[in-house]
Amino acid sequence: MKIALAQLNYHVGNFESNTNKIIQHIREAKQNGADLVVFAELCVCGYPARDFLEFNEFITLCAEAAKTIAAECKDIACIIGLPTPNNNPEGKDLNNSAYFIENGAVKAVVNKALLPNYDIFDEYRYFEPSTQFSCIDFKGKRIALTICEDLWNTIENPLYITRPMDTLIKQNPDVMINIAASPFAYNHDEERVEILKDNASRYNLPLFYVNHVGAQTELIFDGGSLVFDNAGNLVDELPYFKEALTYYTLNEDASISFEHAATIKAGHQSDIEQIHQGLILGIKDYFVKSGFKQAILGLSGGIDSAVVCALAAEALGPENVMAVLLPSRFSSDHSIKDAEDLVANLGCKSETVAIAKITESFESALSPQFKNLPFNIAEENIQSRSRAVVLMAMCNKFGYILLNTSNKSEAAVGYGTLYGDMCGGISVIGDVFKTQVFELAREINKNREIIPENTIVKPPSAELRPDQKDTDSLPEYDTLDAILFEYILNRRSSAEIIKLGFDEAVVRKVLRLVNISEHKRYQTPPILRVSPKAFGMGRRMPIVGKYLS
Amino acid sequence: MKIALAQLNYHVGNFESNTNKIIQHIREAKQNGADLVVFAELCVCGYPARDFLEFNEFITLCAEAAKTIAAECKDIACIIGLPTPNNNPEGKDLNNSAYFIENGAVKAVVNKALLPNYDIFDEYRYFEPSTQFSCIDFKGKRIALTICEDLWNTIENPLYITRPMDTLIKQNPDVMINIAASPFAYNHDEERVEILKDNASRYNLPLFYVNHVGAQTELIFDGGSLVFDNAGNLVDELPYFKEALTYYTLNEDASISFEHAATIKAGHQSDIEQIHQGLILGIKDYFVKSGFKQAILGLSGGIDSAVVCALAAEALGPENVMAVLLPSRFSSDHSIKDAEDLVANLGCKSETVAIAKITESFESALSPQFKNLPFNIAEENIQSRSRAVVLMAMCNKFGYILLNTSNKSEAAVGYGTLYGDMCGGISVIGDVFKTQVFELAREINKNREIIPENTIVKPPSAELRPDQKDTDSLPEYDTLDAILFEYILNRRSSAEIIKLGFDEAVVRKVLRLVNISEHKRYQTPPILRVSPKAFGMGRRMPIVGKYLS
Repeated sequence: MKIALAQLNYHVGNFESNTNKIIQHIREAKQNGADLVVFAELCVCGYPARDFLEFNEFITLCAEAAKTIAAECKDIACIIGLPTPNNNPEGKDLNNSAYFIENGAVKAVVNKALLPNYDIFDEYRYFEPSTQFSCIDFKGKRIALTICEDLWNTIENPLYITRPMDTLIKQNPDVMINIAASPFAYNHDEERVEILKDNASRYNLPLFYVNHVGAQTELIFDGGSLVFDNAGNLVDELPYFKEALTYYTLNEDASISFEHAATIKAGHQSDIEQIHQGLILGIKDYFVKSGFKQAILGLSGGIDSAVVCALAAEALGPENVMAVLLPSRFSSDHSIKDAEDLVANLGCKSETVAIAKITESFESALSPQFKNLPFNIAEENIQSRSRAVVLMAMCNKFGYILLNTSNKSEAAVGYGTLYGDMCGGISVIGDVFKTQVFELAREINKNREIIPENTIVKPPSAELRPDQKDTDSLPEYDTLDAILFEYILNRRSSAEIIKLGFDEAVVRKVLRLVNISEHKRYQTPPILRVSPKAFGMGRRMPIVGKYLS
Repeated sequence: MKIALAQLNYHVGNFESNTNKIIQHIREAKQNGADLVVFAELCVCGYPARDFLEFNEFITLCAEAAKTIAAECKDIACIIGLPTPNNNPEGKDLNNSAYFIENGAVKAVVNKALLPNYDIFDEYRYFEPSTQFSCIDFKGKRIALTICEDLWNTIENPLYITRPMDTLIKQNPDVMINIAASPFAYNHDEERVEILKDNASRYNLPLFYVNHVGAQTELIFDGGSLVFDNAGNLVDELPYFKEALTYYTLNEDASISFEHAATIKAGHQSDIEQIHQGLILGIKDYFVKSGFKQAILGLSGGIDSAVVCALAAEALGPENVMAVLLPSRFSSDHSIKDAEDLVANLGCKSETVAIAKITESFESALSPQFKNLPFNIAEENIQSRSRAVVLMAMCNKFGYILLNTSNKSEAAVGYGTLYGDMCGGISVIGDVFKTQVFELAREINKNREIIPENTIVKPPSAELRPDQKDTDSLPEYDTLDAILFEYILNRRSSAEIIKLGFDEAVVRKVLRLVNISEHKRYQTPPILRVSPKAFGMGRRMPIVGKYLS
């Protein structure tokens, strides 16, 4: 049996484009002699469709798309994923389903049993878990078809009380196929290989695994679909961050052969290389899927905006990136020069709009209220917010999308101005700690100096008052990021973090800053997710809660 | 047996205050001769604790608080709610539990079986559902204790495949007790009465139901705890939007007697009266629980900001409300006068900061880029954003929280300026349609004219260009709100809404506006929820999705 794996970039709710893409790939697979072509989980509507799933019309559109796709399946079978109405009157209204389509009709329906409902996942919000499991017979082979999480109930920390493969294995399948929507995080590729390998060897079956690729707002899907033999050996790994269609022959002895060169990369790519590629895809798809072309951002001469500018130029082309220098009376000469050097290195567009007169107009208008009160955070934030007004005015006039340039460290401790530098349509590096931003700058400069060396080596400063340095109010970034990592990713308590060797006062201050900044993060743009725990939909904290604040 | 119901206002994560409040009420109930005092679901940590629940330390703090509370339970029993570790290695790490405490120790633990995971609820994110059900024997009575949703699996549209009471009833209980965290929506009190009444009569048991009262950021809990006899008659209804401690004697014949005057209000209060009270509580608790006192808002002379100003003055006291008039060159004289009249009627503080020179400074700074391009939305938004910068500067200088004044109709269609009038710490009327805002103004003016009549009767305008009216770009609000209601609350398709008799072009335009504005709503402040479907945590839509946009 010849199996094709289609690892594709879908668009949530774009039935026309998703259906056309699926049909195109069915045709191509048929031309290449495939017996079966496998698409990803919920590919018909895209993932995550979120509360679109609560609209009956949306579910009807999924069913209509499936019908159109089924009509193409003559002399080839396919597996697609879509939401379907739950036939049982009890329970949620929908199932997360896979259709096995043969001879133009749906031959079998498999419903997902294990519904992830943690971090960025909300599947139990929509779907009823399946409790019945049946293999599918096709061309003399018996297929155990499961959906993503169904293979993820680990032995060590079982999150669910059932394990679908334990039932399916009793039906003596010849092969496992798993269709998935498994989003990118820099550590997730290795975890995926390990868990799927474990399944292949535990059940002694070859395993074909198909993932999504492409970004849907903040969620980036990295592809990396996988093929294992029945001993649990990884025999092929599809490309990361790219679409692919590959072919395999499942032989009578359960071995797998294929004609292309295997591309096994797991473990070979550094976290920062993966983050780099993920962010490029994230930016690109945000613009393509929202129908925009041109990005704008404020370029301060600092490392955060420099990195975002370089990533945007790579993702969209420098001709589609407008970098705006917005110097105030506190901007240093080197900042302006560093920003100009970057623009020259990238070849992107640039404008300069000085904000000194704007901030003066605010201070003058507010002088009856502010009287002679000393310069403080109010005046600092006026600068940051004036820049945002200028950038947004250019968006409104010329049709740009503003890129947010905040990093994860400052977003964590609230070191940013709401409605100022926290603005933007999408946050590019909001899931990248400051220490990783430096690594990312080095990665971007790997082949030639794009980001000026001076931008990388100078001490970080917001330049909102004379001689300001980030370290005036924050610990060194090495320390800060280490504490934030323990708190945000490992969810350790202050006592536990202090026990790791960090200064007690610093730890308490940092955790408090994180917790009193929830109201700010609530209003930030969606953040491209590259880590296992990003701010945004995967981290849902109370705002007026008292714990740790 | 004498049962006390404690309907209290908790604070998420504030263990000290929650524990003290629970202990105080145990003491008071004991003094009044109660055998048992019943507190609400998850009262120990507050509801919703959201991802605080993922911190082990948080769960430990809950256990410690329960120990402190248990030590108070001598000669009185109590029921409290808290998250507890799941003892089964399989499944989620936590249970949503009720402790029955007697003689200083936990006598029984009941775990919630039906975990709401729709709209604003995320319980399956944290909790493993219970599959075992046992009654509790206490003072010769057998109690069927359940937690909130456990009684909400309706016969008509069962959302779950089990029904805990069907198991418990076989153990011959004498009484049902249900502890809940059931948030306010203007239609929810009637629904609650109906479903609980149905349980009491179906199982032929008296039913005591205890709810939360008080707001946690956007979620308002309205109290309204309930007592039914075994025929399903409502015998008492605790106050709405207020704390209460009430006593009942459950007699041998299953009848219920009590000494206070019953206060049954269900169905007697209009939606708008409930919304009014809910918003007052929502504002008050947002400030109290975040440790702030003073609110600020921009007062335009229009109805939205007038209503928010009046509500804030009622909730916080007029002395704690700063209304800022921010006239531009397009502000009409009547707007300024209407705003001044409102300030005089309320007795709140007020300042005037003219923004004409500020907007000129932006336009002048941007003239090299904007050249002679015509005045458009860019310049309109500069006005709105300049006002936001002024208001936020006053927040930063004086410690106010900015109240957002957008209504639900404009939030729905994106008729608002991101980082402009969409700013604020909390949105007061973001879940109130414009037509309801008018009703609310009339409700506020019930006893005397607070909101100037002219503010209510003049045609709504954003006053961002000469002679602008809302109806220049939107349908009349009666039509708009009716379409929005069908789409947002009833989730009807455009075809279904058109079939109801609305103009096709208008319907398509409105639905498209709603869908292309998701990116704006993503960045708005939390919205006090008063309807069954508010923007925010209960409505999770894709941003770059294509469906309907």
